[in-house]
Amino acid sequence: MQDANVSRYPFPSLDEMPADVRARCLEVQEKSGFVPNVFLALAHRPDEFRAFFAYYDALMLKDSGISKAEREMIVVATSSANQCEYCVVSHGAILRIYAKDPLIADRVAVNYRKADLAPRRRSMIEFALKVALRSHEIEEADFELLDAHGFTREDAWDIGAVAALFALSNRMANLAGMRPNREFFDIGRNPR
Amino acid sequence: MQDANVSRYPFPSLDEMPADVRARCLEVQEKSGFVPNVFLALAHRPDEFRAFFAYYDALMLKDSGISKAEREMIVVATSSANQCEYCVVSHGAILRIYAKDPLIADRVAVNYRKADLAPRRRSMIEFALKVALRSHEIEEADFELLDAHGFTREDAWDIGAVAALFALSNRMANLAGMRPNREFFDIGRNPR
Amino acid sequence: MQDANVSRYPFPSLDEMPADVRARCLEVQEKSGFVPNVFLALAHRPDEFRAFFAYYDALMLKDSGISKAEREMIVVATSSANQCEYCVVSHGAILRIYAKDPLIADRVAVNYRKADLAPRRRSMIEFALKVALRSHEIEEADFELLDAHGFTREDAWDIGAVAALFALSNRMANLAGMRPNREFFDIGRNPR
Amino acid sequence: MQDANVSRYPFPSLDEMPADVRARCLEVQEKSGFVPNVFLALAHRPDEFRAFFAYYDALMLKDSGISKAEREMIVVATSSANQCEYCVVSHGAILRIYAKDPLIADRVAVNYRKADLAPRRRSMIEFALKVALRSHEIEEADFELLDAHGFTREDAWDIGAVAALFALSNRMANLAGMRPNREFFDIGRNPR
Amino acid sequence: MQDANVSRYPFPSLDEMPADVRARCLEVQEKSGFVPNVFLALAHRPDEFRAFFAYYDALMLKDSGISKAEREMIVVATSSANQCEYCVVSHGAILRIYAKDPLIADRVAVNYRKADLAPRRRSMIEFALKVALRSHEIEEADFELLDAHGFTREDAWDIGAVAALFALSNRMANLAGMRPNREFFDIGRNPR
Amino acid sequence: MQDANVSRYPFPSLDEMPADVRARCLEVQEKSGFVPNVFLALAHRPDEFRAFFAYYDALMLKDSGISKAEREMIVVATSSANQCEYCVVSHGAILRIYAKDPLIADRVAVNYRKADLAPRRRSMIEFALKVALRSHEIEEADFELLDAHGFTREDAWDIGAVAALFALSNRMANLAGMRPNREFFDIGRNPR
Repeated sequence: MQDANVSRYPFPSLDEMPADVRARCLEVQEKSGFVPNVFLALAHRPDEFRAFFAYYDALMLKDSGISKAEREMIVVATSSANQCEYCVVSHGAILRIYAKDPLIADRVAVNYRKADLAPRRRSMIEFALKVALRSHEIEEADFELLDAHGFTREDAWDIGAVAALFALSNRMANLAGMRPNREFFDIGRNPR
Repeated sequence: MQDANVSRYPFPSLDEMPADVRARCLEVQEKSGFVPNVFLALAHRPDEFRAFFAYYDALMLKDSGISKAEREMIVVATSSANQCEYCVVSHGAILRIYAKDPLIADRVAVNYRKADLAPRRRSMIEFALKVALRSHEIEEADFELLDAHGFTREDAWDIGAVAALFALSNRMANLAGMRPNREFFDIGRNPR
Repeated sequence: MQDANVSRYPFPSLDEMPADVRARCLEVQEKSGFVPNVFLALAHRPDEFRAFFAYYDALMLKDSGISKAEREMIVVATSSANQCEYCVVSHGAILRIYAKDPLIADRVAVNYRKADLAPRRRSMIEFALKVALRSHEIEEADFELLDAHGFTREDAWDIGAVAALFALSNRMANLAGMRPNREFFDIGRNPR
Repeated sequence: MQDANVSRYPFPSLDEMPADVRARCLEVQEKSGFVPNVFLALAHRPDEFRAFFAYYDALMLKDSGISKAEREMIVVATSSANQCEYCVVSHGAILRIYAKDPLIADRVAVNYRKADLAPRRRSMIEFALKVALRSHEIEEADFELLDAHGFTREDAWDIGAVAALFALSNRMANLAGMRPNREFFDIGRNPR
Repeated sequence: MQDANVSRYPFPSLDEMPADVRARCLEVQEKSGFVPNVFLALAHRPDEFRAFFAYYDALMLKDSGISKAEREMIVVATSSANQCEYCVVSHGAILRIYAKDPLIADRVAVNYRKADLAPRRRSMIEFALKVALRSHEIEEADFELLDAHGFTREDAWDIGAVAALFALSNRMANLAGMRPNREFFDIGRNPR
Repeated sequence: MQDANVSRYPFPSLDEMPADVRARCLEVQEKSGFVPNVFLALAHRPDEFRAFFAYYDALMLKDSGISKAEREMIVVATSSANQCEYCVVSHGAILRIYAKDPLIADRVAVNYRKADLAPRRRSMIEFALKVALRSHEIEEADFELLDAHGFTREDAWDIGAVAALFALSNRMANLAGMRPNREFFDIGRNPR
């Protein structure tokens, strides 16, 4: 199939996908009500699809000292720094749900300094942005800053690895010109 | 184990690794004569190890319009832009081998413009660097430039995806403070 | 009064404002249902309030070759480049209304290149961003680019002047730490 | 009229101006001996002329904890950072007069760090440059730095607002290609 | 001697200098009426003094396709990009003299694009700034641009070498904190 | 002669050189076994050749608180920041010899932060990079940092002057398109 609202590249219909790829798409469709475009766009390359979601599951679904809402904050902040529309909009939606806060995604995306983050979360975002934007400057002192806010070394890996995975994801989305599904723009906004 | 020449983080001995992770390490050891530190460092997180090498295999080992030497050039050029010592040194070695050119890695790492690359390869490197450094500016015109040098749209995905995977890899190596094995500095230099 | 959700600075209640300032606040309250925080925050300095809104009216309300929706697009794009939460969120709401498009503000804010803008509008945004970010490089050639899309010299002034006014506005909002009213986050989203 | 030494845009002769705009031009002509080109250039748009000078008067003429010479220093430093020829040259002249120092303008324009500014003035310039160049990073700590040099919160507003107004002014001057009057280059130099 | 208006470092009096260094200082004093501070500051290191002025003479005094006024333009433009007060002010004075234009130095220093330079001179300045700021990007195409304005390859060397010499000079002046002599601020201004 | 592996510019054969220039080339040939290309390339301009090597000798050969290996580290680190292939490769070779460390040059070139430098050497490199990249920000505090690591003010001059000389040298090498001799790539690698 070809649909510029999904990707610059062609992608298979659900019927054309390898069984495991289709199963994953159907699983998310069941849960969300629709198949997020990144699933369709990456299905163009089944091996890359499998590797990407294996990485995603390893970091985003597991138990961690970094809550799921916090991991989504990292995604939104670093994806905004990389100007990745797909990730800012789609993970913005997930962040609103996990944080139960209809405003948090827009605030983190525009300027995390104004988002009234607790000092712990702010230090987390700043470490993530350093990994995203100038990882060659990461040094022992950066880990000590995290430690001062109660983050362990394993937490630091989790924070940095989420930023690193979305460094990849942002570039793939920008390369393929992925567009966020219409639904993501509104999910979790819960207007008053 | 703990060895600052491998990683800031502890990592398992071969005996302590899950069987599939160990098998992969032994395979590369057999082929190269040593286990590259990235294998040890990522073994600290077996699920991430598996996902990373699945992604790596999907992009670096498959048949492609981009030769293996060219893929290594992309790795060296983008890793140098990200100041990732591990990837510049280790993939520099692989590039020297694949390209059968003892000088190419140093030249691409310092300034690809001076590396006497053919126009096709140069356009490939410039697309890869755009994905690495400002993927939000990727547009139709960038694909047309590649097309003018005979690269298909699938080739463009391959080029961009290698740059995107090493965007992740560079950040993980800088996060964990991975150090290149001593051997990599000399492999393929073949001094006269 | 003092309210960190409005400004870092104190500001007068409606009763304490000079009559003309109060009248302006009441006018916008009648129209919108609430007083946008920039009105309250700037009322701390009545002379600056008057000058700012005189400038605003001179550019944003008048007839122009640049439609009101287009002027709001310029505000959102340049305010996002300046990471001004107040202006991105509040003018994002106005842009959604004027453009009758619930998605346009988020798309322009994250990456205007992905917002499916017609070439004319895209050239308008790029001129505005050049004024916002590197006005010292503006030259005759920039006006000719606009001319090729049907913009007159007076249109160019309008585009550039909106970018220039929000260069001021973004800096004042960031200086005073202005926060967007809760309402702005949802206005014009019209979820399906 | 059309005169490339004034503006890229046409502008009215004194006779053609609205009475209040002409009165303002005549007033400055009487005081300075000539009409600064910014008055002529902005007279092309009388409403914007009125708003601009209302803002200017509100900030540059009023009593403040920031002396008039200091306000001109802020203008010269931030306008130099924005490479605005009109503002650097014209306000450089005014700064020389107010500061009674024939060298200060050139020194602040090239590199304020070498201008032998007292620590108080230096902190003022650094706050102004932060507002001019990266206002999204302004935080409580910036105000505390100013406080340590005796600046109140109202002083901080004054410093930041001058930087913000010239963010607008520099962009308008660069947009219209305004040129400084010949006189400004020499005023206040008082060669020995 | 120690004089913060000359240098952060001590420097010899004329009597204390080696004979050839003193001779050079006396020669410039005779010609200019004063000893420019760079002569005093560098005399702290006689061998470096000799090498610097040998380089200077080789580039700035010789016959060239680039006139002496043009060479001074290159110095002012690149020194302003490097924010070197000493070189902008002192070579600004020399530029005014050579170009017989009291305004040219200030205009080139603030924004060369607004200095009404003929296209040939503008291309010269842009090549010089590329050498000064991103010489690693210099390529054949840059020489062809110069060629289109009538500059030979030897002219290109002269332009680039002047930019390169002042890359050194700007850094030494900033390192030693050299201050321009009072006289330089006014020389060649010839106020009307 | 014309040889694109040496320079974009023609250069004299040894026979055609002025006697002193030839003597210098023969001297280095005797010592190294070959004439480094910078000697040939600069011989195109004998006066500049003489001045450059006089400067070089004044800084690189003399006794100093900065060891010869340390001076070469400064050259490699700053030349890498300037992406100068000639200087990174040729001085990398000299650094390996002087430091008796086959890995140090590659490590300093890619990311000095990962090169396990002692704190004293690291502060030296950071001062040198500040001179190389933003000398206008050099201030008293920078000298105090060096002082805390035991560097005198004269040492600071030596560090900064080496960075400044290679600011010139990197630009000349990039301008002339100088290529490192084949030998430099391997010298001092001493593979195990």
